[in-house]
Amino acid sequence: MDNRTFGDRLAERIADLGPLCVGVDPSREMLASWERDDDVYGLEFFALAMLEAAMGHAAALKPQVAYFERFGSAGYAVLERVISEGRDAGLMVIADAKRGDIGSTNDGYAEAWFAPRSPLRADALTVSPYLGLSAMSSLVDSAVATGSGLFVVVASSNEEGRVVQSARTATDEKVEDYLLRQIATLNEKADHLGAVGAVVGATRDRPRFDLSMLHGPYLVPGVGAQGASPDDVGKLFERCPKGSVLVNVSRAISGAGPESRALRDAVRRWRDDLSAVLP
Amino acid sequence: MDNRTFGDRLAERIADLGPLCVGVDPSREMLASWERDDDVYGLEFFALAMLEAAMGHAAALKPQVAYFERFGSAGYAVLERVISEGRDAGLMVIADAKRGDIGSTNDGYAEAWFAPRSPLRADALTVSPYLGLSAMSSLVDSAVATGSGLFVVVASSNEEGRVVQSARTATDEKVEDYLLRQIATLNEKADHLGAVGAVVGATRDRPRFDLSMLHGPYLVPGVGAQGASPDDVGKLFERCPKGSVLVNVSRAISGAGPESRALRDAVRRWRDDLSAVLP
Repeated sequence: MDNRTFGDRLAERIADLGPLCVGVDPSREMLASWERDDDVYGLEFFALAMLEAAMGHAAALKPQVAYFERFGSAGYAVLERVISEGRDAGLMVIADAKRGDIGSTNDGYAEAWFAPRSPLRADALTVSPYLGLSAMSSLVDSAVATGSGLFVVVASSNEEGRVVQSARTATDEKVEDYLLRQIATLNEKADHLGAVGAVVGATRDRPRFDLSMLHGPYLVPGVGAQGASPDDVGKLFERCPKGSVLVNVSRAISGAGPESRALRDAVRRWRDDLSAVLP
Repeated sequence: MDNRTFGDRLAERIADLGPLCVGVDPSREMLASWERDDDVYGLEFFALAMLEAAMGHAAALKPQVAYFERFGSAGYAVLERVISEGRDAGLMVIADAKRGDIGSTNDGYAEAWFAPRSPLRADALTVSPYLGLSAMSSLVDSAVATGSGLFVVVASSNEEGRVVQSARTATDEKVEDYLLRQIATLNEKADHLGAVGAVVGATRDRPRFDLSMLHGPYLVPGVGAQGASPDDVGKLFERCPKGSVLVNVSRAISGAGPESRALRDAVRRWRDDLSAVLP
């Protein structure tokens, strides 16, 4: 078995294929723009087309779980297929689910997303830390044990997140800086990049915390449809270790429409534009 | 169609049946203590037994979605059954999923949990506000339009949540007070109790915000296995409107074991103990 950390596995993949993560966001609006019905068949068509376009040209695939959940268990069956076929195709699959709860409930999430026998077994999971990063020890332990990763939402790409994320803790640091510092501590035991990453939006100002000191990977939303450019990403993460920055692009790729060559071209273009500006 | 708000519907149910919400937490440990296999059959047996015990004696049922997600799409199929049978049995079903993301993604969650045609259509959903309560307008609008409710996690029952929840915003108020104030504003248009509620743990100190001014319902965890007593709840919410406080008890009920009379007795006991101390 591959016993490297998620961070190191991802860095290797980024070295081979570039820093692009293809986001899979099968919203009602996106299916309509592809002239597909808003049902599980449209969902599956869209998700598999995005997977195929990403294969061999992107390091990772990020299904947004909310859009699969719209169809209940039938949507989850499609999600299972996308995760397992994505991993079989050599993509690192990141389930974008923003999970997080008290400790005993997080055990359930760890089983769902990281247990080898689970049908939803992914390479990494996004988590939302409102109930406390230190409540997530079972998720961290399970990620380390299974070679999986967590991406903790620290500084989201949307403006509305700033009230909470920029609030000041009892030790007078911003919540986002506090979390980055905690993540760095969780990654201390790793030789290179650890299992715990951070979501930091490309639309955000540089935090006080030195981003090159996380000892873990970054997942970066906000590029393309949300307004940030590759140059913004390059500047924000300029001193970070090689292969530690993964940039998600969703709508700016799927907006190319359902034709496979157009999708593939969009994937390559974003990969090249991002490779040019990242370490 | 019933066009009252979720808050008013819940208050009526509490007036009839008392303030107890039966939590459905089919963790691996709980299934083992019931001597059931940790598979979808064990999951379904447990969840339906809890539903049956709650029926006619509790106002609400709260499946913890994490434990269903452990079994992927098959677990979600059981969840669909629990939600729809619970609602058919006259229980208000609250999906405890702690969802929350940027605005466009929240549209997907609104479709999943509130759309009348969705197989997961519940009475209410718990949400986690790290990406901003104001990013949740589509969830709020959808809740209002469908007579459903949101419970925003404000002050969780676990100690680890306090770093973020007690941090101070730019206007120098605690995050928890800021959120309670925002929720009260969202409920302003309702005649009595609105669609947006708050999760406030019974293990927490009284916030600065006057809890009687939310104009929405409370969902209260932390009682029983997590250490708080009915008296703690009674004191914390003493001046709140009649029927606005719903108290969740999970492990302290399922710990009575799988025998239906024992479960039913545990439900009645908690209902009576809580009814005695709440408005």
